Amino acid sequence: MSLWQLDQIRIVLVEPAGPLNVGAAARVMKNMGLHQLVLVNPHCDPHCEESRRMAVHGSDVLAGAKVVSDLPTALIGCERAVATTGRLHPQAQPLDLPETALPWLLPTQPEHRFAAALVFGPEDRGLSNEELIYTQRWVRIPASDQYPSLNLAQAVAVCSYLLHRQVLHGALTETFSPGAGATMGGHLAPLEQIEGFYQDLEIVLLKIGYLYPHTAPSRMAKLRRLLHRAGPDSKELAMLRGILRQVNWAVDAPQQET
Amino acid sequence: MSLWQLDQIRIVLVEPAGPLNVGAAARVMKNMGLHQLVLVNPHCDPHCEESRRMAVHGSDVLAGAKVVSDLPTALIGCERAVATTGRLHPQAQPLDLPETALPWLLPTQPEHRFAAALVFGPEDRGLSNEELIYTQRWVRIPASDQYPSLNLAQAVAVCSYLLHRQVLHGALTETFSPGAGATMGGHLAPLEQIEGFYQDLEIVLLKIGYLYPHTAPSRMAKLRRLLHRAGPDSKELAMLRGILRQVNWAVDAPQQET
Repeated sequence: MSLWQLDQIRIVLVEPAGPLNVGAAARVMKNMGLHQLVLVNPHCDPHCEESRRMAVHGSDVLAGAKVVSDLPTALIGCERAVATTGRLHPQAQPLDLPETALPWLLPTQPEHRFAAALVFGPEDRGLSNEELIYTQRWVRIPASDQYPSLNLAQAVAVCSYLLHRQVLHGALTETFSPGAGATMGGHLAPLEQIEGFYQDLEIVLLKIGYLYPHTAPSRMAKLRRLLHRAGPDSKELAMLRGILRQVNWAVDAPQQET
Repeated sequence: MSLWQLDQIRIVLVEPAGPLNVGAAARVMKNMGLHQLVLVNPHCDPHCEESRRMAVHGSDVLAGAKVVSDLPTALIGCERAVATTGRLHPQAQPLDLPETALPWLLPTQPEHRFAAALVFGPEDRGLSNEELIYTQRWVRIPASDQYPSLNLAQAVAVCSYLLHRQVLHGALTETFSPGAGATMGGHLAPLEQIEGFYQDLEIVLLKIGYLYPHTAPSRMAKLRRLLHRAGPDSKELAMLRGILRQVNWAVDAPQQET
């Protein structure tokens, strides 16, 4: 399944110098359903052995990378462009959070598609003010002020993930709904089955001397809370009942032998 | 400014083989305010030239990395552990989204701190089922089904970013699912205590004839899943141990009488 919302997004790397970074960027783009890589005046050979080794199965993204000489050329045809920057530009426009600006690169309806670009600067200096002005919005990835500068490929990873996540979000909240239930899509054991188990459990625990009649209710209440939190399905409950039966048998068996 | 919520989070890499990955992981950890790196039986020299070059100013995280021989040792003292996996485990527990499970690793109040771990598998195979069972929750980073396998350091980058982001802006939503553990605000039992219980449980279940040596691992894995979902606290674990002791006693007692 390909996500059409991501089809027209270009990841633009300005003057990347590290072939490992270019390869790693291609890989994570492929991971996240992005395909268009544009390299502006690369300072390394993007098709060298090191780069391809890092790309692994993203090698098709790497092989299809377009090389251009300047940033305006990289942005031709784009309606929207967001630049990433690690620096704070107090006099300039405010920096957006990735979660705020990146969704803006995505079309919301199939009939309203447009090309868009997400731009990353060189490893050593980031994007210059002259380069930033070609884009409409600027994003800064929040990071520790002790060391705010991310590796280029890591920055591509974080942003690509967020783009992918944004597209999937609706579907994901449905299929991966967190919470109730043991197995994926499975049913919890019916409550009456669980009640039956508690009754058998109490009998066995009394029998082996773990419970005494006067302590049984409060102890059983604690055990119930624990098991209810786990939310067992029918198979798991059957497993627990199997243990109970076997305890019963093991306790009785030697007595029968005597 | 250091973010105290991140101080007790360990990033655990199981058998990492690529020094570049270890170095890049250390860098992005430092970027995101994480400091505790634990390497389980690394298949590379984490302090080699390549690794240090990738870490750049995260070299202190790299230098402080703790090397241990197995995953349970890496988790000693932790209350909560989340594993990352690229595989789908249809018969097993549902996989969480990073945005759902990662906030669970963070304390919400300064007086309620706890150690927690986020575990990543080896580059070539990811975490095995045997390794996954040591953790309470499993996370899968959503990715393209054409190439879902992220580079190790990229996976660390995405998760570290999300942890940092959650602390800074509370952007992610934690949902308290059954797996989210005991009483809200209470302490879960330390994982090494839970491990000790599992070992005792297996011995007892073998003794009473519920388990056989050849079925023990898969059955124990299912029982682990169930109990991890419940998230027992120390009192509850003590209760379960009490039951085990009593079963043991009840099974032995009649034989001693004869």
